Amino acid sequence: MIVVMTPESTEAQLNHVVQLVTEMGLTTHIIRGTDRTVVAAVGDKRNTDKTAIENCGGVEKIVPILAPFKVASKEVKQEKTIVELTPGGATVGGKELAIIGGPCAVESRQQIIDVAHAIKASGAVGLRGGAFKPRTSPYSFQGLAEKGLEYLAEAGQATGLAVFTEVLTMEHCKMVGNYADVLQIGARNMQNFMLLNAAGQQSKPVLLKRGMSATMEEFLLAAEYIINAGNPNVILCERGVRTFEQYCRNSLNLSIIPAIQRVSHLPIIADPSHGTGHAYMVEPASKAAIAAGADGLIIEVHPDPERACSDAGQQLTPAAFDELMQKVKRVANAVDRQLEAGHKQAEPAPN
Amino acid sequence: MIVVMTPESTEAQLNHVVQLVTEMGLTTHIIRGTDRTVVAAVGDKRNTDKTAIENCGGVEKIVPILAPFKVASKEVKQEKTIVELTPGGATVGGKELAIIGGPCAVESRQQIIDVAHAIKASGAVGLRGGAFKPRTSPYSFQGLAEKGLEYLAEAGQATGLAVFTEVLTMEHCKMVGNYADVLQIGARNMQNFMLLNAAGQQSKPVLLKRGMSATMEEFLLAAEYIINAGNPNVILCERGVRTFEQYCRNSLNLSIIPAIQRVSHLPIIADPSHGTGHAYMVEPASKAAIAAGADGLIIEVHPDPERACSDAGQQLTPAAFDELMQKVKRVANAVDRQLEAGHKQAEPAPN
Amino acid sequence: MIVVMTPESTEAQLNHVVQLVTEMGLTTHIIRGTDRTVVAAVGDKRNTDKTAIENCGGVEKIVPILAPFKVASKEVKQEKTIVELTPGGATVGGKELAIIGGPCAVESRQQIIDVAHAIKASGAVGLRGGAFKPRTSPYSFQGLAEKGLEYLAEAGQATGLAVFTEVLTMEHCKMVGNYADVLQIGARNMQNFMLLNAAGQQSKPVLLKRGMSATMEEFLLAAEYIINAGNPNVILCERGVRTFEQYCRNSLNLSIIPAIQRVSHLPIIADPSHGTGHAYMVEPASKAAIAAGADGLIIEVHPDPERACSDAGQQLTPAAFDELMQKVKRVANAVDRQLEAGHKQAEPAPN
Amino acid sequence: MIVVMTPESTEAQLNHVVQLVTEMGLTTHIIRGTDRTVVAAVGDKRNTDKTAIENCGGVEKIVPILAPFKVASKEVKQEKTIVELTPGGATVGGKELAIIGGPCAVESRQQIIDVAHAIKASGAVGLRGGAFKPRTSPYSFQGLAEKGLEYLAEAGQATGLAVFTEVLTMEHCKMVGNYADVLQIGARNMQNFMLLNAAGQQSKPVLLKRGMSATMEEFLLAAEYIINAGNPNVILCERGVRTFEQYCRNSLNLSIIPAIQRVSHLPIIADPSHGTGHAYMVEPASKAAIAAGADGLIIEVHPDPERACSDAGQQLTPAAFDELMQKVKRVANAVDRQLEAGHKQAEPAPN
Repeated sequence: MIVVMTPESTEAQLNHVVQLVTEMGLTTHIIRGTDRTVVAAVGDKRNTDKTAIENCGGVEKIVPILAPFKVASKEVKQEKTIVELTPGGATVGGKELAIIGGPCAVESRQQIIDVAHAIKASGAVGLRGGAFKPRTSPYSFQGLAEKGLEYLAEAGQATGLAVFTEVLTMEHCKMVGNYADVLQIGARNMQNFMLLNAAGQQSKPVLLKRGMSATMEEFLLAAEYIINAGNPNVILCERGVRTFEQYCRNSLNLSIIPAIQRVSHLPIIADPSHGTGHAYMVEPASKAAIAAGADGLIIEVHPDPERACSDAGQQLTPAAFDELMQKVKRVANAVDRQLEAGHKQAEPAPN
Repeated sequence: MIVVMTPESTEAQLNHVVQLVTEMGLTTHIIRGTDRTVVAAVGDKRNTDKTAIENCGGVEKIVPILAPFKVASKEVKQEKTIVELTPGGATVGGKELAIIGGPCAVESRQQIIDVAHAIKASGAVGLRGGAFKPRTSPYSFQGLAEKGLEYLAEAGQATGLAVFTEVLTMEHCKMVGNYADVLQIGARNMQNFMLLNAAGQQSKPVLLKRGMSATMEEFLLAAEYIINAGNPNVILCERGVRTFEQYCRNSLNLSIIPAIQRVSHLPIIADPSHGTGHAYMVEPASKAAIAAGADGLIIEVHPDPERACSDAGQQLTPAAFDELMQKVKRVANAVDRQLEAGHKQAEPAPN
Repeated sequence: MIVVMTPESTEAQLNHVVQLVTEMGLTTHIIRGTDRTVVAAVGDKRNTDKTAIENCGGVEKIVPILAPFKVASKEVKQEKTIVELTPGGATVGGKELAIIGGPCAVESRQQIIDVAHAIKASGAVGLRGGAFKPRTSPYSFQGLAEKGLEYLAEAGQATGLAVFTEVLTMEHCKMVGNYADVLQIGARNMQNFMLLNAAGQQSKPVLLKRGMSATMEEFLLAAEYIINAGNPNVILCERGVRTFEQYCRNSLNLSIIPAIQRVSHLPIIADPSHGTGHAYMVEPASKAAIAAGADGLIIEVHPDPERACSDAGQQLTPAAFDELMQKVKRVANAVDRQLEAGHKQAEPAPN
Repeated sequence: MIVVMTPESTEAQLNHVVQLVTEMGLTTHIIRGTDRTVVAAVGDKRNTDKTAIENCGGVEKIVPILAPFKVASKEVKQEKTIVELTPGGATVGGKELAIIGGPCAVESRQQIIDVAHAIKASGAVGLRGGAFKPRTSPYSFQGLAEKGLEYLAEAGQATGLAVFTEVLTMEHCKMVGNYADVLQIGARNMQNFMLLNAAGQQSKPVLLKRGMSATMEEFLLAAEYIINAGNPNVILCERGVRTFEQYCRNSLNLSIIPAIQRVSHLPIIADPSHGTGHAYMVEPASKAAIAAGADGLIIEVHPDPERACSDAGQQLTPAAFDELMQKVKRVANAVDRQLEAGHKQAEPAPN
């Protein structure tokens, strides 16, 4: 941390800052520049709130130097994390891309089983589907709850696809583990710290979506909650952030992929369905995400999008998904990645 | 809802749209303009996902006409909602402004009792303090939990201040009700729909903070979850949204106050502490919020901000809070509001 | 500037950074912390591009310490700048608030003269009106050009109001000076550096509006272009920034007022008309801006808003403006400011 | 346009709206729904300001139906526009991608000639370089002016590369045409309507960059200014928008590529250098842009980025650019595009 003093600050004020910083357990270096005096505070004290120094007289601003995240960073673990979706099954983070498909919400047994067979045939390794739906409006379809989980599990077993489903509460974290292979934490819950802890205390991998206006630091700190609670198998997911743009529901920000890969060992996939909000944009966004280095995609597929119960405007038909897979495969090859389903010996992806 | 067809759409496509809209239980009017044909769909079907129509061939876009919120709107209830913080005690939403103060986190018994007496003397009607802290970083202070609630309750009883504290889980909603007068739902949980439901199923008033990038519609829909679950006593709170601005932690958007007052009957207060993130901005932001029509303020006050455990940079000393109260009182009078503690017969605020 | 090295950086990389920084004419201090080595570079070299250091091997990031603006800052001039709108006339930046009113565009001689008399009677000191309209759409009304300037000048003379009008090109800077008292540079031209230079090379005061997504630093740097070109009489104007909010056209960010007042000596006013985009929000936004410490307001007033040629939805009638002035006056008094027209001996405003 | 009346609006208010809409030359259809009455206004009157209706009593909101842009839209011209950078030379908008490289600023004759030869050898078809630099800070390097243009022209002739350079004023539009093949209008000038007009009145193609917070509609309306002034050869360029993200200077929003291709016939390229602001992100962003359907790239290349005069942190070395070109070529092939320099008979790109 660097404390920048104002030009008119006094020696007494400087001394007071040095004292407070020392109280925090940090050592100080004073540098007197042409226009400013700064106090460089050395040491790693993530648990003290350093904004306190802002309240001292004569302080212009505080500039942090260390990133606030740690166990998610490459400093702690250089090699990339490869997450097995099922024991010995497909992986995320290796050379092979993991493509997950499925409807926004599980609507019926037939619906989810049909979609599962269709996407499996197109090359997907995971099946998504919401049983508990966190809907913006209380008037919208809220999901089939545990019945939906049963259908999902059946569809997963019938096809061998790894089952992804969203958890909304600490209780879900236990219950869902009986049916699903991967627990998903949605964008709206990225900073639901109780939920992050609960997801960290169970053993299934966790797919963590970026919050609608979360910075990269907040995203990685959310992942740290899960890792610190005991679960190292975190898959990050970029799903678009909120900007002023109105032609898309969210703005997929692909530059977070190289940014994450520079500082973290965690794999990251993209959600082009929520990341755009419109079916016609899903294919270009999918190809772009893979070209930018994503480790996989999670895409909404519905047998009859015109009659889907939720997020209908962004769902692909199984036929459109199949066509997309052919195109994504070509882009994957052009960046030295493959699309086939996971094997045990995945090599780390190039980043 | 208006469905806008593309210029090159066919009659068959138009008929298909009319059929789908009719299936949804809506009646249709077709208007053939100079450049576009549009289908106006009449009726109130909030529970169907109309974005489904986007997937139909020949559709350019869907334009909603009805706001998605209902019980929070003035259409359902014209007169302004006045919330009693304690039975027969101070109110929010009437002519009198409710000022709530207190530290970000309860750190010790002495701290919270000292602050309570200080802010009471300055004219506050509520005491805030976090017992469970949802911190961005897992390395930050996480709160005193139930012990903190006990201290809060004691401070409330000693001073007569209404106690506000944040709930993070459904369990908290029950437990906290034994200690606090008002349950607070933080910005990060504004779309934690399970929590909203739980808060709606208990009887204490709820202070609902706007999410960091929530639209006004999403904000009011979150309030509707609480109201629909049985609790009409919702106080909205603007606490700043995330923008590109870097000189403030969040951008307090005061225009949401007249916007909410135009469409909703719910009271709305402002949080100038989180809404700016810097102590030096709290006074101007407080005065501005009252001038814009806010029904109250929630302000962070700490006996020793330089040593505060959380959000230290935005906490006021009790002396600074007292000075602020004098200034806010003058602005309140200039907009025909008062600052004195609540009485039973509050008149609705002018909006 | 602080250069933060990566944990795995080598001594050779550190030496290379030190050499490059030294080449820039800065002196270096190396601080070896527990997790990072940083190079503190001391000296004031605003004309070198320090992002170059980012390209060096082993560099994690560059952290600037000095603000990039200088002559607009309080370090160079402590006392607040008070700008005279006309020689010996009303001022901006003193204890008295300057309220400027008028239509978005000059539409006819009668229109502008009628509005001028009306707002003068309500207590305004300035008259605004666009002769050259920078319209987003080429199909929109583009203004009366020099004819409009003539009408403005006539209305100014008839009422004694200072005339404000927008300049779009370097040529306008000369021409407009013959008719107007204050040159306005619009949000879309805040970084039109040729125009800023031209405005700095003439002698009339300049009203500089913040760009739609400009940071405070960019805003003050734009002011520095004008000051450095020879014109110290710059009035800043907050007119809202672009965010995801959709219930207002722009989001007026009032926290920029205390932020500017903390670092700069320049006066700052607010534009609640463009800053909200809707007539019903103008009054609360005006009162809030004054409460937050603005030195004045610029408000759109039109004799017949229903038939206005541009930005019709945000224009007030003269009667609504008169009512607003009564309310603003009360808020002004509550923050120790006054609304009466300018006298010669203005005292600096409290900030 | 749809005018939505409030639930409590009267028949007199409805009649007044109908009268005003009729005055505008539009015909009206009244639809009485369950919750709202709406007035659908039919006709194409882009030159009247319809927000005026907002001021009428009983009006809740105005909903536009027609997009405000016209000549840039596919309704007016179905086939994609292919722009020749030089007569009979390389094109933008056809099956072949146009890659443009070069330094942010022309710094010396040798620098620009060296870069030109290097990028030509790597497969670029255009050379960029700024002679007049619009710098945020008045203390930054401002460019070599006409001398820089001479060097650019020489480098273009020596290599056969099409020369791109930025214009800042109406005068530049004339002068630059003597040296350059394509006039560039920067993000900060996207709504400098006088400049757009001037660029439209000369015959060289125009590269128009999206403003830092411009919507797609504003972007296309800016293009319409140029087209309406007589110049149909407009190349759009996405260069990132401003969001809250701090790990990148701007957020490249690739979803604008399919969005533009859906509604407009104009070609669109991407600027991954300004669109990210960091050299390490340029390669993934370049590959992503091509995968998303961009018609080309404009990339900053500098022989010695560590000593570049402007935007140093985002410049590639010629060697890094060469490596990038090899990778981009593979992605281009995977989406059925090619990288070779332009021929006369380009086929339209698939969109």
